[in-house]
Amino acid sequence: MPERVVILGGGFGGIGAARELKGVDVEVVLVDQHDYHTFQPLLYQVATDLLETTAVGHPLRDLFHDQPNVTVHEATVVAVDADARQVQFAEMAPVGYDHLVLALGAHVNFFGVDGAGDHAFPLYTLADAVRLKEHILDRWEAADRDPGLVDDGVVNVVVVGGGPTGIESAGALSELYRNEFAKDYPHLPQERIRIVLVEAGDDIFTMFRPEIREYTRAVLAERSVEVMVGETVASVTPTRVQLASGKSIDAHTLVWGAGLQANPVAAALGVDVVRGGRIPVGPDLTVAGHPEIFAVGDIAAIEQKGDEKPLPQLGSVALQSGEHAGASIAAQLKGKQPKPFRYHDKGTMATIGRMSAVIQTRHGRTITGPPASLAWGAVHLALLSTGEDRAKAMIDWTWAGFSHERAGRISVKTEDAQPAAH
Amino acid sequence: MPERVVILGGGFGGIGAARELKGVDVEVVLVDQHDYHTFQPLLYQVATDLLETTAVGHPLRDLFHDQPNVTVHEATVVAVDADARQVQFAEMAPVGYDHLVLALGAHVNFFGVDGAGDHAFPLYTLADAVRLKEHILDRWEAADRDPGLVDDGVVNVVVVGGGPTGIESAGALSELYRNEFAKDYPHLPQERIRIVLVEAGDDIFTMFRPEIREYTRAVLAERSVEVMVGETVASVTPTRVQLASGKSIDAHTLVWGAGLQANPVAAALGVDVVRGGRIPVGPDLTVAGHPEIFAVGDIAAIEQKGDEKPLPQLGSVALQSGEHAGASIAAQLKGKQPKPFRYHDKGTMATIGRMSAVIQTRHGRTITGPPASLAWGAVHLALLSTGEDRAKAMIDWTWAGFSHERAGRISVKTEDAQPAAH
Repeated sequence: MPERVVILGGGFGGIGAARELKGVDVEVVLVDQHDYHTFQPLLYQVATDLLETTAVGHPLRDLFHDQPNVTVHEATVVAVDADARQVQFAEMAPVGYDHLVLALGAHVNFFGVDGAGDHAFPLYTLADAVRLKEHILDRWEAADRDPGLVDDGVVNVVVVGGGPTGIESAGALSELYRNEFAKDYPHLPQERIRIVLVEAGDDIFTMFRPEIREYTRAVLAERSVEVMVGETVASVTPTRVQLASGKSIDAHTLVWGAGLQANPVAAALGVDVVRGGRIPVGPDLTVAGHPEIFAVGDIAAIEQKGDEKPLPQLGSVALQSGEHAGASIAAQLKGKQPKPFRYHDKGTMATIGRMSAVIQTRHGRTITGPPASLAWGAVHLALLSTGEDRAKAMIDWTWAGFSHERAGRISVKTEDAQPAAH
Repeated sequence: MPERVVILGGGFGGIGAARELKGVDVEVVLVDQHDYHTFQPLLYQVATDLLETTAVGHPLRDLFHDQPNVTVHEATVVAVDADARQVQFAEMAPVGYDHLVLALGAHVNFFGVDGAGDHAFPLYTLADAVRLKEHILDRWEAADRDPGLVDDGVVNVVVVGGGPTGIESAGALSELYRNEFAKDYPHLPQERIRIVLVEAGDDIFTMFRPEIREYTRAVLAERSVEVMVGETVASVTPTRVQLASGKSIDAHTLVWGAGLQANPVAAALGVDVVRGGRIPVGPDLTVAGHPEIFAVGDIAAIEQKGDEKPLPQLGSVALQSGEHAGASIAAQLKGKQPKPFRYHDKGTMATIGRMSAVIQTRHGRTITGPPASLAWGAVHLALLSTGEDRAKAMIDWTWAGFSHERAGRISVKTEDAQPAAH
């Protein structure tokens, strides 16, 4: 009987770990609460109708058709019993393990802001993206039927967070609003429709060098995105966002791109979690006292020698740490000593809008504008799971680039699917 | 002030009418309960994960960006006041008209079968297709977690109706089950999983010539679809289908491809409706006593000289009758006399599975197998709304043809999108 590796989570971390076990004499059981892997960096493009759900969510089972030692299940983790080396699930029998990879990701952190849990739209999962997209389409249709609602903020959006999620979302929303929706709803007063980006710190894009920040501020201003720094959200209702400074913004949509807290399973594991509920791991990514349990990706607090803070909760960190966990298990099975994990920063990139991207290489070189956009597109196409995903994303991007039309701009409400004959 | 044409419904009939009014000095208001047009003939491909929702549902506003006299609203019709020449809506102010085109389509008819309204899956709208797709994926995941459920019929499907909807659905389900799912769930006993087609009459595909019926029966048998003719469904529960003959089939899924009844607005209009709740129209497609009201597509009972029965509820009839209504209004505005409607039957085609289609031309010539499949693909690509839809359908079909992988095989449940931090 080969040993069993249970991988919890089918995001970048879980996929990376499973991939490294290809051809290894081990039974791999990968469990996710969904039947698909999500390419999170492009979720904002689903929310803004540019990409299909199926370009960004890919069937997990497809990814392992060429890897017969992997079994995939769709189930929800209830608890990990580290003493019995067993995982319990809501929908199926417990599964025992010899090695465990915790790659469950995070949940959105609303930092206790009043009303945010009920009325804010996070962008961490594919379902989040679809929910935001449908809400925005719904609000525009309401404005179409009653243009008087525009001044009540029916289609205004407040985006919280001046990091990549917030800025990419604000930029993409601005493209959608100023191009497609301006054509779809020519009778609505575009000039009175607001997109506001709110950032608590004193600047946006603080992970980037000053010249990139300046470029970004200029691009956002040109696209009529208002940027408010040094502001935090105090409370949210369905129609209004109240800032701590006393200002308020009439807006029916609040996009939350502001922070994460680890999956509740982390706390339930019985180890002391650190800031953000993340699980601290050793240099080999294992949990203290449990050399058979790895924690990778957003759920883990991974420290690097010489750094003050743990590595950021990014897809590249999740993928590399997942791969490291898989490779370490493979090495152990061959009687080899696993190596400590070392993150390779390949640089950072983000898109603010059509032909307006920014790149900072790990050596601090910066690129902005069309060349950065082309590089951004090439890298993201290369990272998508399969050739089909790549082909579809390319068609969607190219078509939208030429025609300023986004095919995703439809809202299929399955709750009305019940026949009227009832 | 130009006259106003109100078109209710954005399906083939409504689109056809609006298109014929391009460049005509008239105000066109097109209202649909959704923000998209649905290409209904391919719904079964959405249900079986072959096509994206956005290849089959297209933003209505996109279709009229080049036609400035058309305004689109998303709203639900509550009533038509033919005396006041006004339409009332659930979500917006009433709209008056000089000419009205009723193109509201139909609802599914369960013919009073016990349990069907709650447990059957119709395939008339895009939401129906998504709901069926998600249900099937959910049932396979349940079987994966507990293979003992297979013999309780957890993934068995009963398809009701031996017409195009039923046969195309059964054929596509068989492809999905015997190829993709066999690879996705290799531990489940394929040979004990049933797909059963139930038809009340004594043969399937009665609109086709005998050689096509024979070919179809052979293809279905080869793909392990059981065909039961002369059987009707007596009742349905979530796990079992009871036939009137006394037989019963353990199945958690019943696909209803069996019949339509007209939109309830037809009855509310105050005209006497005919069989199936359809609105009878004169040779010019207007409603008796109301030369300003046209009824087209599935909601109308359109008779042709010399035919016993009204024209069937097909996309081609809807499109041609909608175009005729639009052209008649344009003619009236120029003081011309509208012509009577004459349907041009361009032949019938259907797909039973990969490389297995059937075609019967209007002269009675029949084609089956790969040549029919290529013709089917070419015709359906040509009919899709835009170049982007065509490109995406082509990629999906080609990719699935080569790889036997369907990207649509994911279930994005937005109801779980609420963050856990609640």
